[in-house]
Amino acid sequence: MRRMGRSESPTAATIGPGVARKAVRRLVGGRAEDTEDRLAVEAPLEIRIGAEPFTVLMRTPGDDEELVTGFLVSEGIVADAAAIRSLRRPAMLLDEGCDNYFEVELAGGDAAPVRERRFFASASCGVCGKSSIEDLAIRRPPIDSTLSVPAALVESLPERLRAVQPAFAETGGLHGAALFDESGSLLAAREDIGRHNAVDKLVGWAARAGRLPLSDAVLAVSGRLGFEIAQKAIVAGIPIVVSVGAASSIAVALAEKYRLTLATFVRPGSLNLFGETGRVVATR
Amino acid sequence: MRRMGRSESPTAATIGPGVARKAVRRLVGGRAEDTEDRLAVEAPLEIRIGAEPFTVLMRTPGDDEELVTGFLVSEGIVADAAAIRSLRRPAMLLDEGCDNYFEVELAGGDAAPVRERRFFASASCGVCGKSSIEDLAIRRPPIDSTLSVPAALVESLPERLRAVQPAFAETGGLHGAALFDESGSLLAAREDIGRHNAVDKLVGWAARAGRLPLSDAVLAVSGRLGFEIAQKAIVAGIPIVVSVGAASSIAVALAEKYRLTLATFVRPGSLNLFGETGRVVATR
Repeated sequence: MRRMGRSESPTAATIGPGVARKAVRRLVGGRAEDTEDRLAVEAPLEIRIGAEPFTVLMRTPGDDEELVTGFLVSEGIVADAAAIRSLRRPAMLLDEGCDNYFEVELAGGDAAPVRERRFFASASCGVCGKSSIEDLAIRRPPIDSTLSVPAALVESLPERLRAVQPAFAETGGLHGAALFDESGSLLAAREDIGRHNAVDKLVGWAARAGRLPLSDAVLAVSGRLGFEIAQKAIVAGIPIVVSVGAASSIAVALAEKYRLTLATFVRPGSLNLFGETGRVVATR
Repeated sequence: MRRMGRSESPTAATIGPGVARKAVRRLVGGRAEDTEDRLAVEAPLEIRIGAEPFTVLMRTPGDDEELVTGFLVSEGIVADAAAIRSLRRPAMLLDEGCDNYFEVELAGGDAAPVRERRFFASASCGVCGKSSIEDLAIRRPPIDSTLSVPAALVESLPERLRAVQPAFAETGGLHGAALFDESGSLLAAREDIGRHNAVDKLVGWAARAGRLPLSDAVLAVSGRLGFEIAQKAIVAGIPIVVSVGAASSIAVALAEKYRLTLATFVRPGSLNLFGETGRVVATR
């Protein structure tokens, strides 16, 4: 049976791995009371490739293997999950209660990739100008997808995303991301304190399931559409990205260059489209 | 006259450096119209220290010198603005229209700082456990401030922050951050696509004005309170941070250790307090 992300327990009342109880002082109408709040968990995850420190992500624990896989894919370090020979938490550290650490062994050997390679170039001005930053960042062909969906379907997705964000409902502190197919069925949903991490968890889920590129999927995110979300969608081959919020200038520039569809300020009855606008069809 | 941040033009109708016009297809009630939207500008800023690439920030252009200064201070690379000998955009690149690049010369010479030093440790498990990550991240004494403010003042700040976010009002795509004094007077306000950048711009403003540590200031931010915001506030010595949103688990852990006050879910008539709760006084 295919795993359905967090959709099994959209109304979970229990404290999951992403939620922590914490004492809080609450001031209401001039009166103080000491009570309990629920916080989104944020913790560092160090990734080493071979023996080399590669990066540290601040993330919400849970789906860590997917996060690491998706991060390596969406940053262009590996093309797919098959390029990762192993992904493990050192037993010695686990024994000490440490689960914030992963060692990755690449199938091609342990050659450490260049860090930040997506930005730094040997040219004197590696980051200036739209074309150079886009080329550095992505190195992918435009998205190849014939996906077309009615506006009414797109308009329904933010509410459906919210319904599969149990930890957000508890804490108000987590971003969510979900993948839907062309008929609007939920494929997978993930939460994280970082919206880019929630997307990487989905990309990692797809990579590990052999489902990349996600040419028939629609990605809905709870936050704004900036550079990172557009970049990750393009690398994963996702043709349509949906948000209740705004897009940034560079996200729109990427959408135009890579034939990505961005739907912003999505509400029942209205939405804005950038990039490949024809994939979302106006409907009454 | 002291610079008052963006407060001079809270209702600016013109397109500032952080806002771009863009054609958009808008679907409303089943009908498509081609119109114009206004987008928050997001562009890369490469920082080199000496000749060495140090990092690239995705930021909204504007107040770049403050951003670079504040970033270097809040990351612990320099203690204050005096430790930066020069901060310049290479003339050759400016001539080519490139303003996304800064070269920093440190007063102590050009020794390149260790990148990501706040996370990576020589110990086998540098990031695990609250105490080790906090020590790595901050290396500061607890915040030393006798600041005390009434809850009513804190409750008014989110609305006042919104009033000095002209680019957010235009685009819906920018975070804002503002510093207020103990009587509630605005000291400075900044906007950026990244909430951490908006805070770094304020820290840079304070550093360049010789106003660090900000022991008598209250910081209001438009987004959630995660690790980075708490870390930057602690390094800048800001005793109280205010948000309409939630705090993460690690932000609360930092607040407790470094005697920072976090006010979350701030609304007229109610707020939650973590860390040094006594600095916000219940009032009728």
